[in-house]
Amino acid sequence: MTTHAFGAHAADQPIVAIDIERRAPGPQDVQIDIAYCGVCHSDLHTVRSEWPGTVYPCVPGHEIVGHVSAVGADVTAFKAGDTVGVGCLVDSCRTCASCEEGLEQYCSKGIIGTYNSPTADAPGHTLGGYSQRIVVDQRFVLHVRHPGEQLAAVAPLLCAGITTYSPLRHWGAGPGKKVGIVGIGGLGHMGVKIAHAMGAQVVAFTTSESKRAEAHRLGADAVVNSRDEAQMQAHAGSFDFILNTVAAPHVLDGFIHLLKRDGTMCLVGAPASPHPSPNVMGLVFGRKAIAGSLIGGLPETQEMLDFCARHGIVADIEIIDAQAIDVAYERMLKSDVKYRFVIDCATMGA
Amino acid sequence: MTTHAFGAHAADQPIVAIDIERRAPGPQDVQIDIAYCGVCHSDLHTVRSEWPGTVYPCVPGHEIVGHVSAVGADVTAFKAGDTVGVGCLVDSCRTCASCEEGLEQYCSKGIIGTYNSPTADAPGHTLGGYSQRIVVDQRFVLHVRHPGEQLAAVAPLLCAGITTYSPLRHWGAGPGKKVGIVGIGGLGHMGVKIAHAMGAQVVAFTTSESKRAEAHRLGADAVVNSRDEAQMQAHAGSFDFILNTVAAPHVLDGFIHLLKRDGTMCLVGAPASPHPSPNVMGLVFGRKAIAGSLIGGLPETQEMLDFCARHGIVADIEIIDAQAIDVAYERMLKSDVKYRFVIDCATMGA
Repeated sequence: MTTHAFGAHAADQPIVAIDIERRAPGPQDVQIDIAYCGVCHSDLHTVRSEWPGTVYPCVPGHEIVGHVSAVGADVTAFKAGDTVGVGCLVDSCRTCASCEEGLEQYCSKGIIGTYNSPTADAPGHTLGGYSQRIVVDQRFVLHVRHPGEQLAAVAPLLCAGITTYSPLRHWGAGPGKKVGIVGIGGLGHMGVKIAHAMGAQVVAFTTSESKRAEAHRLGADAVVNSRDEAQMQAHAGSFDFILNTVAAPHVLDGFIHLLKRDGTMCLVGAPASPHPSPNVMGLVFGRKAIAGSLIGGLPETQEMLDFCARHGIVADIEIIDAQAIDVAYERMLKSDVKYRFVIDCATMGA
Repeated sequence: MTTHAFGAHAADQPIVAIDIERRAPGPQDVQIDIAYCGVCHSDLHTVRSEWPGTVYPCVPGHEIVGHVSAVGADVTAFKAGDTVGVGCLVDSCRTCASCEEGLEQYCSKGIIGTYNSPTADAPGHTLGGYSQRIVVDQRFVLHVRHPGEQLAAVAPLLCAGITTYSPLRHWGAGPGKKVGIVGIGGLGHMGVKIAHAMGAQVVAFTTSESKRAEAHRLGADAVVNSRDEAQMQAHAGSFDFILNTVAAPHVLDGFIHLLKRDGTMCLVGAPASPHPSPNVMGLVFGRKAIAGSLIGGLPETQEMLDFCARHGIVADIEIIDAQAIDVAYERMLKSDVKYRFVIDCATMGA
């Protein structure tokens, strides 16, 4: 089944139209006509070989929404016409402790990503959502229950949404809790919306004074310029949890200082070079922790989508044509996007 | 009340005999005739001004055991003749959330250490356990229920013991849990004994092949040379908790790799210069955490002492005369002690 897609033939080549093959749906498969696909920073890192191991042709994209166009004989949870999503995973071992607990993202055998992972399908590695159709095992397909007109803006929930929702849930964001969100970008703007909807007191941290009003609009109760020592000090020892979405290397100690005793700061950004080493005494005095978190498992991703549908939460997006992906990458590198690009896959041709 | 003590008059001066004054016991005070005091690395850092803020004369020592020689009118929990201990704290605000929870070590107003902290007593800062007598508010005094002949070896429990017991308890060491102890020194040898007595499966990590038999004797089920890649890899992803007692800067990533999903490595050593910055992706893949922990509160320190008495746990010690403290410091700097020096305070004179 030939499908229009956009991707790159090499690390130094532009994103261009590519025709790819999708497998015919097996008994457990859901065939999805992709309507929109979000543009994640990981796409750029992978397609340009900024991370090791990219295989070409590379078709990125793991923030996928669309409609079911066919299902295999054993598929019970989905039917043609359903609105669905696919996130960062399309398979895992399904038998390890993490998979059995529905935490497939931590599969001990390693996850099969939506792109650039080994697969029996041609060409031997998975091809992602910058395409018009994808075939995915039903275990890795999600129901989208948002109103249809929000569909494009739902796409980023599949990565940016779950990446922030999962740690917020895990570390107990909710009423009576004070939660910080560091960085107001693709991830951070979702973190503010979700933490606010969970009922937490939300403080947004930014280095851009220009984002102050924006952060309030997104749901922040307070906004702190993290370069302003006095503003930071005013919140010392007061946070139950801080979600740090900033991938650029930066000093973590100032945020650790803002945690209450037993508080955790969770990092979800992957810096290209290390953060300055955190001060151990900052952790010792207050039994504090620095942790990490990776997207979410399938049950929690469904929970997140339903939570967001119930609370009317979508991403703030800018819709682009497939032909503009390289331009969008350049703008993303300059943080010139509020807050996520989403590709209209109809622009890939008929 | 003049009391014989040992301490230093300046950072570059030796430890010498000093006569100090102790206050007369107030209504809440317990007066203790000190029998033994352990020698902690913090003593050396403080007395030599390796950490900022040392005031002189400096009398270190916060691993104190002895016998009650007088009590104030309102003291109910202690009477003359009782065997007691004093650890790292002699006061705190007593009213903040942490103090009210019995976690005085995390007092939001800052703790009053057993030495080098502000006090109304002469000479304006606290003087520690390298002395023959001390007067301490009953809230900060602990019952020692070990057999009398073990008293000297109980002293290090007041710092090294609680520093390892508290995080082991907090992070749930016990039956069915696999726990790592990194570093077999003053802290680590206590960590191995305590984790073993808690019922955990204990793996000791050392860089000294010569400590292998020792670690088994202390209670380790397995011993890993952390410089041996194959030995390390054999334990990948298997630890519920790792207690890292090593203060020297070292790479943390190899230990993070050994944690299970949701595992924590807790640091209790304070490096003089930072550890190499931990790899964020090592935390992200597995939702792992690096945390810190500081000694323990008074209720937990009593719990620890009683636990150790029940299980026959004391420190492995070498008893020294007060005149040998500087020599002991030099040996401690070369890790030439198994595993804690304890000063016989009777050697301070009559």
